[in-house]
Amino acid sequence: MAGRKVLIVYAHQEPRSFNGSLKRIAVEELSKQGCSVTVSDLYAMQFEPRATRNDVVGCLDNSEEFNYGVETWEAYKRGGLSNDVIEEQKKVQEADLLIFQFPLYWFSMPAIMKGWMDRVLVQGFAHEFPNCYDSGLLKNKLAMFSFTTGGSEEMYAKGSINGDIRYLLWPMQHGIMHFCGVKVLAPHICFAPEYVSEEKRKEMLNAWAQRLKTLWKEEPINCSPEWYFQ
Amino acid sequence: MAGRKVLIVYAHQEPRSFNGSLKRIAVEELSKQGCSVTVSDLYAMQFEPRATRNDVVGCLDNSEEFNYGVETWEAYKRGGLSNDVIEEQKKVQEADLLIFQFPLYWFSMPAIMKGWMDRVLVQGFAHEFPNCYDSGLLKNKLAMFSFTTGGSEEMYAKGSINGDIRYLLWPMQHGIMHFCGVKVLAPHICFAPEYVSEEKRKEMLNAWAQRLKTLWKEEPINCSPEWYFQ
Repeated sequence: MAGRKVLIVYAHQEPRSFNGSLKRIAVEELSKQGCSVTVSDLYAMQFEPRATRNDVVGCLDNSEEFNYGVETWEAYKRGGLSNDVIEEQKKVQEADLLIFQFPLYWFSMPAIMKGWMDRVLVQGFAHEFPNCYDSGLLKNKLAMFSFTTGGSEEMYAKGSINGDIRYLLWPMQHGIMHFCGVKVLAPHICFAPEYVSEEKRKEMLNAWAQRLKTLWKEEPINCSPEWYFQ
Repeated sequence: MAGRKVLIVYAHQEPRSFNGSLKRIAVEELSKQGCSVTVSDLYAMQFEPRATRNDVVGCLDNSEEFNYGVETWEAYKRGGLSNDVIEEQKKVQEADLLIFQFPLYWFSMPAIMKGWMDRVLVQGFAHEFPNCYDSGLLKNKLAMFSFTTGGSEEMYAKGSINGDIRYLLWPMQHGIMHFCGVKVLAPHICFAPEYVSEEKRKEMLNAWAQRLKTLWKEEPINCSPEWYFQ
């Protein structure tokens, strides 16, 4: 789909990692389709994950008691957020599709990526009550969580020790993306690439490239409790 | 319970915040009981949330391709983790009870606290297959997630827009604490302190102090999918 804009938010320390390969394949395949692809390589950028007073340029609205949510909302409205946050917001604003590429850390995304969510998706920019969920401010965008696990697919089956993998997708897909109005494509999960054969790893990379070829034809999931918990 | 050791991992930027009050009350009440209380005040410590090569002192096991999980596991075994991580591991090792005190950010903990999980609970220290879940290396410890929300209790009821609050506890309580063998006490949730009356806020602080008085008599929850999803 020529002309579409994609932002890949990528969190792995090592370019030669399996996550690095998945990211590279996405850049190549989507570029080949004529999409314009931007990558936020969070570790390479040394992206700041901590939500602090430094995110607000100039005076605070209330310097007696620092309230991060209120201060960043006010700062957003007057154009007073720190530059690194503004840069990421511009990339999000322009994107039709956000791909989050990361290794699963503790049933969630790595802290550096959680910090991207905490700092970039501020009130006023991504949501502003009652503009949340289906009327969130980032509606008309798509998102996909693409990640690797340590555990095998069997360990993330319903009834197994880790529970259904969908359980852990709720906070990320529903609590963040859906909350901002973003429609969520089915996640792309590569189970335990560290523990499978080289051949199997190649198959996984190939499957990702194949999926990307028809990505724009996919329908978003129905992001409601039923999808996650049946 | 005199002599018991408690570690409070605290993530709020502002000492005068409601989270700050909850933390202070816990320190006071538990100290009064004769417990020894340690606080890791993550923002005050400027705790590093990013999982990087800096966490490993000296040479890498494989300098060709950096694998955070493998390198920190090896570093743990030879005593080669960075000092800030070792300090936190010592506090965890000594503690009978871990209390995580934070404002809910995006259906989860703030990035600075997620970074504490990512960096401190390394393989070899907190888990080492097959020593996970009930045989995790931190068994015989208790943990509690104590947090504030922006949304009201009604917004986090089953069937309402945010879904049951228990849905979002799964990755934190089960995926992190239970995985390491830690038994989980019922969470302590203060809903929307920013949007209630001063009197109601005082009631909430009082309820926390009251709960702490009999905390050591509480039974852990049954940390299985039934508790979360019924």
